[in-house]
Amino acid sequence: MKTTPSLIIKLGFFALVIAMVGCGQTTAPSAAEVAGPLDLFPSPERPAGQEDVIELRCEPIETVRMAIIGLGMRGSGAVRRYTFMEGVEIVALCDLEPHNTGRAQKILTDKGFSEADLYNGPEDYKAICERDDIDLIYICTNWGLHTPIAIYAMEHGKHVATEVPAAITIEECWQLVNTAEKTQRHCMQLENCNYDFFEMATLNMAQQGLFGEVLHGEGAYIHDLRFLNFAEYEPGKSAYHGMWRLKQNETRNGNLYPTHGFGPICHIMNIHRGDRMSHIVSMSTKQAGMNPYAAEKFGADSDFATREYKRGDMNTSLVRTENGKTIMIQHDVTSPRPYSRIHLVSGTKGFARKWPERGLAFEPNAHEFLPEEEMEAMLEKYEHPITKEVGEKAREVGGHGGMDFIMDYRLIYCLRNGLPLDQDVYDAAEWSAISQLSEKSVELGSMPIQVPDFTRGAWKKVDRVTYYH
Amino acid sequence: MKTTPSLIIKLGFFALVIAMVGCGQTTAPSAAEVAGPLDLFPSPERPAGQEDVIELRCEPIETVRMAIIGLGMRGSGAVRRYTFMEGVEIVALCDLEPHNTGRAQKILTDKGFSEADLYNGPEDYKAICERDDIDLIYICTNWGLHTPIAIYAMEHGKHVATEVPAAITIEECWQLVNTAEKTQRHCMQLENCNYDFFEMATLNMAQQGLFGEVLHGEGAYIHDLRFLNFAEYEPGKSAYHGMWRLKQNETRNGNLYPTHGFGPICHIMNIHRGDRMSHIVSMSTKQAGMNPYAAEKFGADSDFATREYKRGDMNTSLVRTENGKTIMIQHDVTSPRPYSRIHLVSGTKGFARKWPERGLAFEPNAHEFLPEEEMEAMLEKYEHPITKEVGEKAREVGGHGGMDFIMDYRLIYCLRNGLPLDQDVYDAAEWSAISQLSEKSVELGSMPIQVPDFTRGAWKKVDRVTYYH
Repeated sequence: MKTTPSLIIKLGFFALVIAMVGCGQTTAPSAAEVAGPLDLFPSPERPAGQEDVIELRCEPIETVRMAIIGLGMRGSGAVRRYTFMEGVEIVALCDLEPHNTGRAQKILTDKGFSEADLYNGPEDYKAICERDDIDLIYICTNWGLHTPIAIYAMEHGKHVATEVPAAITIEECWQLVNTAEKTQRHCMQLENCNYDFFEMATLNMAQQGLFGEVLHGEGAYIHDLRFLNFAEYEPGKSAYHGMWRLKQNETRNGNLYPTHGFGPICHIMNIHRGDRMSHIVSMSTKQAGMNPYAAEKFGADSDFATREYKRGDMNTSLVRTENGKTIMIQHDVTSPRPYSRIHLVSGTKGFARKWPERGLAFEPNAHEFLPEEEMEAMLEKYEHPITKEVGEKAREVGGHGGMDFIMDYRLIYCLRNGLPLDQDVYDAAEWSAISQLSEKSVELGSMPIQVPDFTRGAWKKVDRVTYYH
Repeated sequence: MKTTPSLIIKLGFFALVIAMVGCGQTTAPSAAEVAGPLDLFPSPERPAGQEDVIELRCEPIETVRMAIIGLGMRGSGAVRRYTFMEGVEIVALCDLEPHNTGRAQKILTDKGFSEADLYNGPEDYKAICERDDIDLIYICTNWGLHTPIAIYAMEHGKHVATEVPAAITIEECWQLVNTAEKTQRHCMQLENCNYDFFEMATLNMAQQGLFGEVLHGEGAYIHDLRFLNFAEYEPGKSAYHGMWRLKQNETRNGNLYPTHGFGPICHIMNIHRGDRMSHIVSMSTKQAGMNPYAAEKFGADSDFATREYKRGDMNTSLVRTENGKTIMIQHDVTSPRPYSRIHLVSGTKGFARKWPERGLAFEPNAHEFLPEEEMEAMLEKYEHPITKEVGEKAREVGGHGGMDFIMDYRLIYCLRNGLPLDQDVYDAAEWSAISQLSEKSVELGSMPIQVPDFTRGAWKKVDRVTYYH
């Protein structure tokens, strides 16, 4: 998405009014008239012969034949989890590192499953996508490959599940949306945090009206990842291969990893189901935590200690919706502080937050959090039917406390039953788009930026998030 | 502060570049070139013969003779607290309601103090300020009178302490600053929350370097005040006289009451002591909680239930400083949720937050909050010398758990010893200015707005907040 050719058109009314004044018009506009979020990422027309994929239903698949691409930290965990799943067959495994494919293969064979075909070439995902015995491509690579692989997979008739963020740029978001619409294939972002127990319970409470009208939400990814960002890959060691994540932190400034905190709030707010994001502003601190950490680890004169890291340690973004709700989202993977995704829901009748402590409060006594016991009773009473159904098994299997398994379970359940997936390609685009939108706002001194409508008007077709079961 | 005559100049480079393009210039500027916070509130030149009041020291006053103006909820509490204070004499009491002056007088005489002179006229504050036997005017009126009374008092040689917010508009902020500079009198905003125990301890920790470089802070005023906003005044009843606060909520949209959460963070960040606020963005939800509340209380067809309330229920603002730090501040006096001022401090070596639970975390184990016992030990070890000195007595006297008394104590202590006050007129202006700055940003679709430098360059004169003792 280039910002040329005509900046004037894209800056819209704002620029035009000021330009008129600059040309000698005598009626100075009021400040209010020159206001408004910048339309720096205008939505392209929907290509002919393509239609939206809201509530997309595809042919049921009795046994989902899948390939997992990227077998590092997240991918190898996925292989393990899928050995607990019915109705699935892992037919191909792909990673640049033979150590990783071998490790994944062993997970399968140790549990008595057939060997999968192994791939180790950087372009081997293409050969996998071109096979006709695969239904689902499950992508756990570095961020930069999520969209390219997803596009190639859908173009070859495959459904796609991709790790977060599904896309890095708005341009990639549109590629995902257009390809999903053109091929009518599923493209699910693997946002596991939507499936955590408290998040699911608050979604259920929201849908049952316990919060009244939800007006404000907060989410975050606050997780000191310096130990991982500065770790060099060796076979078997947890690290980002080739330090790819450090490079992201070196070259970009904004909320680089928005979806974990944002996804659950967006679903509770029914984003693109009767409401949509209108605009965003974003602000970063300077960077202060990376160089000192690197100096301690590698020496004060080391390359790592003396590089410039562009990403400010803390980024805070504010999003407003068409219906007048707001969402605050934060990203900090550097500052020394306890982990938090916040997960705060504030409505006209009740309130919930998960970090630093779980808490629920409802009218007429919302000025105080429910006592522990009453909160637990509410969480049990309003446990989401899906976590009720599969939560016990999920906790046994593990993976971030169970939510990873619930996510996988839901993906496979919906594919097997021909149901719309819980997270569609518009979720993937909207949640991922926060990255570049926040980067642009930060670059422009926190200017408000319009959020593209990836549904191109279809956000009014349904009025709430559906988790079919 | 009018925004005329020349909008072009005030919108600065942003407008000029766009205007050039609009006039047919062929070189389109990059998005980066058109960025930048709007300078809608340019700083006026410092009038001749006037100098800054950074670290202002005035003649010591052995016994501080004071008048308290406004004897409703806050003012009557102040009278009671001052009966526990040495070196003070309350010589005048003023309120529109004879019930309130009578009640305050009784507090004095019940404790064996001399009667104060009582005033009940709307302009009587002038007669009080014109007396020559008063050193300090202590203002607890509705918001709209804080600045006018403070100005009149300083112009008549009095020191001033005013309830929060000290000013409603940027124009009023400049009036306070200019009058304090011209008269070289103290003008302290009565921000009691700066003196709460945890806030003071974290200030002390910050000054001793426990957080490393403080990069990000958060504050809030989240307090469901609907019961008060919709209460009608009767003698002896807690309510805003003439429902003045409801009117503020009807006519303005932004962070109307920023200082309680903001003040403590600004002091920890040494704002206008080596750093200054650069710009702000602000976003409000729609209003959704006022009309239904009024409908329930007064009936669905009542005037209160059918009025339009302009203030969105939740307002979130982001401030960035010259040195690259950020502050998030929120205001919500409508949504049903537990009280919070957040008070979050995040630095390169440690982390603190007060709401919903107190928590401290420090390197190298900052990924977890200190266990309760260790936290208490740290809070004891780093208790601020001032709360150590007066905290026990303050807890006995009461007033928001003691912080009100500590505030009063500090005000009187510094006046009696000829010391700079903990909070100066620039604090008053900066913290209060958030109101109109946030309103303007909200009005303009969350445009970034430059924050005036009320010190006009003097913010580099000292490098940290001083609480002299």
